[in-house]
Amino acid sequence: MLLACLYLIISSSSQLRARATEEYELARKKVSHFINASDSREIVFTRNATEAINLVAYTWGLQNIKPDDEILLTVAEHHSAIVPWQLVAQKTGAVLKFVELNGDEVPDVDNLKDMLSRKTKLVVVHHVSNVLASLVRIRRMWLNIEMSDLGYTILNTDRLCSSYQDIVLCAHDVGAKVLVDACQSVPHMVVDVQNLNADFLVASSHKMCGPTGVGFLYGKSDLLSAMPPFLGGGEMISDVFLDHSTYAEPPSRFEAGTPAIGEAIGLGAAIDYLSGLGMQKIHDYEIFLAKYLYDSLSSVPNIHIYGPVPSNHVSRAALCSFNIDNIHPTDLATYLDQQHGVAIRSGHHCAQPLHRHLGVSASARASLHFYNTVEDIDDFIWALNDAVSFFNSFK
Amino acid sequence: MLLACLYLIISSSSQLRARATEEYELARKKVSHFINASDSREIVFTRNATEAINLVAYTWGLQNIKPDDEILLTVAEHHSAIVPWQLVAQKTGAVLKFVELNGDEVPDVDNLKDMLSRKTKLVVVHHVSNVLASLVRIRRMWLNIEMSDLGYTILNTDRLCSSYQDIVLCAHDVGAKVLVDACQSVPHMVVDVQNLNADFLVASSHKMCGPTGVGFLYGKSDLLSAMPPFLGGGEMISDVFLDHSTYAEPPSRFEAGTPAIGEAIGLGAAIDYLSGLGMQKIHDYEIFLAKYLYDSLSSVPNIHIYGPVPSNHVSRAALCSFNIDNIHPTDLATYLDQQHGVAIRSGHHCAQPLHRHLGVSASARASLHFYNTVEDIDDFIWALNDAVSFFNSFK
Repeated sequence: MLLACLYLIISSSSQLRARATEEYELARKKVSHFINASDSREIVFTRNATEAINLVAYTWGLQNIKPDDEILLTVAEHHSAIVPWQLVAQKTGAVLKFVELNGDEVPDVDNLKDMLSRKTKLVVVHHVSNVLASLVRIRRMWLNIEMSDLGYTILNTDRLCSSYQDIVLCAHDVGAKVLVDACQSVPHMVVDVQNLNADFLVASSHKMCGPTGVGFLYGKSDLLSAMPPFLGGGEMISDVFLDHSTYAEPPSRFEAGTPAIGEAIGLGAAIDYLSGLGMQKIHDYEIFLAKYLYDSLSSVPNIHIYGPVPSNHVSRAALCSFNIDNIHPTDLATYLDQQHGVAIRSGHHCAQPLHRHLGVSASARASLHFYNTVEDIDDFIWALNDAVSFFNSFK
Repeated sequence: MLLACLYLIISSSSQLRARATEEYELARKKVSHFINASDSREIVFTRNATEAINLVAYTWGLQNIKPDDEILLTVAEHHSAIVPWQLVAQKTGAVLKFVELNGDEVPDVDNLKDMLSRKTKLVVVHHVSNVLASLVRIRRMWLNIEMSDLGYTILNTDRLCSSYQDIVLCAHDVGAKVLVDACQSVPHMVVDVQNLNADFLVASSHKMCGPTGVGFLYGKSDLLSAMPPFLGGGEMISDVFLDHSTYAEPPSRFEAGTPAIGEAIGLGAAIDYLSGLGMQKIHDYEIFLAKYLYDSLSSVPNIHIYGPVPSNHVSRAALCSFNIDNIHPTDLATYLDQQHGVAIRSGHHCAQPLHRHLGVSASARASLHFYNTVEDIDDFIWALNDAVSFFNSFK
């Protein structure tokens, strides 16, 4: 007896519609709570983190960035955090500036102090590097007080932007906004956007044990409210006339058309799962795994592992990008996959500028999450040594 | 022993990655085959049809539409086909022009002939109306030859654009491109993009028994190849340097970041399902249901059903938008849902300009698909009569 399911979801006057809307908005609340946003209306669902960054570029970016303005990034950014701003620079006449790596192979964020000026309109920075495994201190005060509890320790405290200022304060001091690519931190540690105080932050569901097809943008309320629409269509409007339209308030303004309803609800379920395990517990365990992975890999002859050396003062995220002399990382990855069922990634990991900076075109990368074990790492190292023997036998 | 799932999908050198890529590209081939595109590289996966239209607006639109150029639409377009072009008009100084309805309450597409000129750069037109249930003759020659087999008959053949020309030919004659919103046709009938000869066509998965979070853009190869990128990020690039990037060929150029992998594969499965049933069979059955629904609804006192009256010469899609004197459609929908478990939609169905044109602010809409039956319609009409009695009892 159920009629008319075709156009039902989100838009009909039915209990099914009400339930879909309720679950979708509940997912938004879960994301909001997970990153401690002050209001769930600060969360915009997107297809992935890439779209979230492009949304900011096309709206806030094109509205606020003018010729000769500067956008400050690091050479370690993911392509998704670089290319949208290249497009904005082409459209506006703005200039991109890049913070390089320091001697420890971590982005020299202290250098930000020298590079920031009244021309800087935006700082784009990753939270945890997907290649270097390093953490960028977005929030120094918070880092000092709380980050040691999270297992991370501050890198190079003697070279901070200024004695008591963090990246966000320094940027805000010159009138710039800060966008944080938190794809590699949100799934692995407690991320608190109110503490970070960044203006925009993005992450994606499929790295958080959630489905593909959904990610999110966090934006401070006042910024989202002042931003023009991005995609035009249903749901994002207030009234449509033939010659113009008026727009809904955020977050609806930025969610045109039928949203990724099932995917957002799936992300909510993934957040329930991660929260149930406990983000602090996940992080503590991963810091332990990360150290074990790094130390184990270091025993492999002729290996170069990128990023900081872990110590009592420096923690790494649970991944290692590396190269072994005279073995192409793709050969390595293929051998490990086919001979040992071990899946690592090879290539530039969507970070070509960083690899160029490191003097290589590609690297191999082993990445862990909470479901991996010390035994997994031992198996990997055993397989890797076998691969090295195999390839060296041809020399 | 499986390590490193985190960044695995689409980007690692593993069998799992190869399988994900293979399945995703197979889904693209299924979509391509379903609408008879000449090459699967003409299919771009998007979040929904809305994003597909915006993609064309932001790329082809901003590249090709200049001040005083004209974009021709009908008043019956969905908001998703209107608002993106309002945004383009605001950015470029172009002008939107709208084809109105004729006396049969169908878009007067013959009027296109008079409205087309060398100023026209784009015609945006729906294939089947989500409110009026009418079919727009995109392809007259094809319609003459084949559409009668599909159950549709041509409306007003005596007032065609020109004796032997269809919309696409007329538009191409003046150098304009044609974008078809096929959201309401692709799930319900055989759609052949090579026969339609439209330049762009969009549809969404969730109306095709597929998952939310995915839709697609069809675009002719030469047009896609000449279009600049839309969203910047991973997958859509060839090489990224600090100051600029080079871009991948279509469709990758327009699919930045991790795509909706699972959702696209789900859409492929839905297409297998629909194809298994047979689109011609689905369409024949829906034409029958549509007539039964229209005739049954016509028996309800004081009802006004929008769109064409079905006859031997005119078929309708299997939906009816209507109003009943002195009963608000939302009251009607709520009563039907709560008292009878019948889900219809009420409101403007993302077509405010059309409703304004019809002289109402909202309507009720019952929509069917192949899984509905005559008994469903009988139950609906019984429930509707009960609702009418209920509301009339208060007068």
